[in-house]
Amino acid sequence: MTRDTTSRGCVLALDVGGTKMSLAAVDRQGGILQRNVIASPARDPEKMLSSLLNLVSGGVESCRAAGLEVEAVGIAAAGFILQQDGLLLESPNIAWSMVPLRGLVAEGAGLPVFLDNDATAAAAGEHFAGAARGVDDFVYLTLGTGIGGGAFTGGRINRGYRGTAGEFGHMTLDPAGPMCGCGRRGCLEALASGTALRREAVRLASRDPGSILHRQCGIDPVALTGEMVSDAAERGDRAALGAFDNVGYYLGLGIINLVHIFDPEMVVLGGGMVGSGHLLMDKVRGVVAERGISCLVRDVTIVISALGGDAGVIGAAAMAWEGIENEPAK
Amino acid sequence: MTRDTTSRGCVLALDVGGTKMSLAAVDRQGGILQRNVIASPARDPEKMLSSLLNLVSGGVESCRAAGLEVEAVGIAAAGFILQQDGLLLESPNIAWSMVPLRGLVAEGAGLPVFLDNDATAAAAGEHFAGAARGVDDFVYLTLGTGIGGGAFTGGRINRGYRGTAGEFGHMTLDPAGPMCGCGRRGCLEALASGTALRREAVRLASRDPGSILHRQCGIDPVALTGEMVSDAAERGDRAALGAFDNVGYYLGLGIINLVHIFDPEMVVLGGGMVGSGHLLMDKVRGVVAERGISCLVRDVTIVISALGGDAGVIGAAAMAWEGIENEPAK
Repeated sequence: MTRDTTSRGCVLALDVGGTKMSLAAVDRQGGILQRNVIASPARDPEKMLSSLLNLVSGGVESCRAAGLEVEAVGIAAAGFILQQDGLLLESPNIAWSMVPLRGLVAEGAGLPVFLDNDATAAAAGEHFAGAARGVDDFVYLTLGTGIGGGAFTGGRINRGYRGTAGEFGHMTLDPAGPMCGCGRRGCLEALASGTALRREAVRLASRDPGSILHRQCGIDPVALTGEMVSDAAERGDRAALGAFDNVGYYLGLGIINLVHIFDPEMVVLGGGMVGSGHLLMDKVRGVVAERGISCLVRDVTIVISALGGDAGVIGAAAMAWEGIENEPAK
Repeated sequence: MTRDTTSRGCVLALDVGGTKMSLAAVDRQGGILQRNVIASPARDPEKMLSSLLNLVSGGVESCRAAGLEVEAVGIAAAGFILQQDGLLLESPNIAWSMVPLRGLVAEGAGLPVFLDNDATAAAAGEHFAGAARGVDDFVYLTLGTGIGGGAFTGGRINRGYRGTAGEFGHMTLDPAGPMCGCGRRGCLEALASGTALRREAVRLASRDPGSILHRQCGIDPVALTGEMVSDAAERGDRAALGAFDNVGYYLGLGIINLVHIFDPEMVVLGGGMVGSGHLLMDKVRGVVAERGISCLVRDVTIVISALGGDAGVIGAAAMAWEGIENEPAK
């Protein structure tokens, strides 16, 4: 069946994180028609769920009022998700455990719902309307407080057997490395996330009284933000540059591993940390070129996400559009 | 077009390694009808190639004499291979560089030829007629002198953009670890291959004059074989058991990384090292269960290859059968 692409159809795309929930009405081309953002009551599982359901039903109402027909809902959620069951197993930043999210939203909204991990969704978003448009083999990494990811192989999302593939942040890179939020040592996330950048900046600034960062906040890690590290690095601060160097080194090693494993055409980096732009990218590209196996890494392009903070919602929309094209509604 | 599965058709499957080349005539069910094995003149690139071409043409003759119709040739070769170009870029154990292997064999034999890396082929073999029959999402690792691998996702081999995916042996696990044959430090291959097992056994035996291994060969690494380490470990030798422990620990970490990345239903371990059986498997299963993220690793089965030393040829045959079903002959 060919769909009528001139109709005022849309999908509701939801990006559920520990800080906020973003809802957007998205058209077939990936254009955002409406949006709404609310804070996540992430520590209260009941309230989190009712806020989410209200956000969706409000979105459906609002679309109707604007003459838009909602065809499906896509949800990108932070956490481990069993795709086939529509079940969120657990989430690092939300007090949810074993939440049958897909079924609950489908029941509430009376619409087909497609659910996946937020980083996997962001990869789908980059493929649908971002940096990896037309690229069938790529690896996506989201670099924020934690590190998530997703891979496309042969034009398809790599979901794995149960749907939890793409946990690139929990690739061990150094068994004697710093403790990770997952309770293990030396994960990529513990070495190359925004959290790791701040930790490295604090460590280096505390030993370097002459550094900008030391003067700004001494050795108080609470006062230090990622932006402060980026700004100081832009101004040539030793401690801040050192932190980027250390984090970029491990991020480069993690990317090399993924290139050796997947042989992608492209690596797309998204998430808050890429806001620091060339500092991180220059280091990462250098490490990959220098330390990867030459004939395996030399043709790989490493780029910054084209969707920025919208990768999650655009990805959720991509999953919803793909879902209603390929699957019978449920 | 439905093929006549009652005909006496077969494919010629070739497994090209640094020590030997195995050729087999394989039927549609993965049964081996004929076979021939010759030594690899791996240091002489010209002689290596002419031996290979002679082996194939001899195989075609021999099949014809037996009333078998050869429909295609599948080649599994040790090395980095550009799938689309049929080009072997380089090989760790064969003095070949930039050899257009597919074209040369196709020209010589007048048959369609399908070429891939030997470990990727072995994964295809396990899917076709081995441990992963009917399993659509699995990771395969071959543990020998080096470590290679291949992954199936959604029932398809993961080849990547250029066809070099699956270099699991060159995943960095410890940037300060021992030197790898690839010139980098702390690759899985440097920590968990047969070579690493022997190195660890020598290291531990040299410090332990009471150990069986020390009495057998002192600290002479040349005299020590993988079998000697296995035998000594079976007899409870401390040094040998320690070597298995160290190698199994890193192999477990590598497998955890791959499970976090791919979310497979199954991990299949092949290659010479799995001959030591339960020693390695017990350790690996223990490390994965204990050190992986519980909700990601708990449902994964880790099994030994069902095809053993035939995984390469059966895999080459699987690629050839799949190739002529899916692609026009070339």
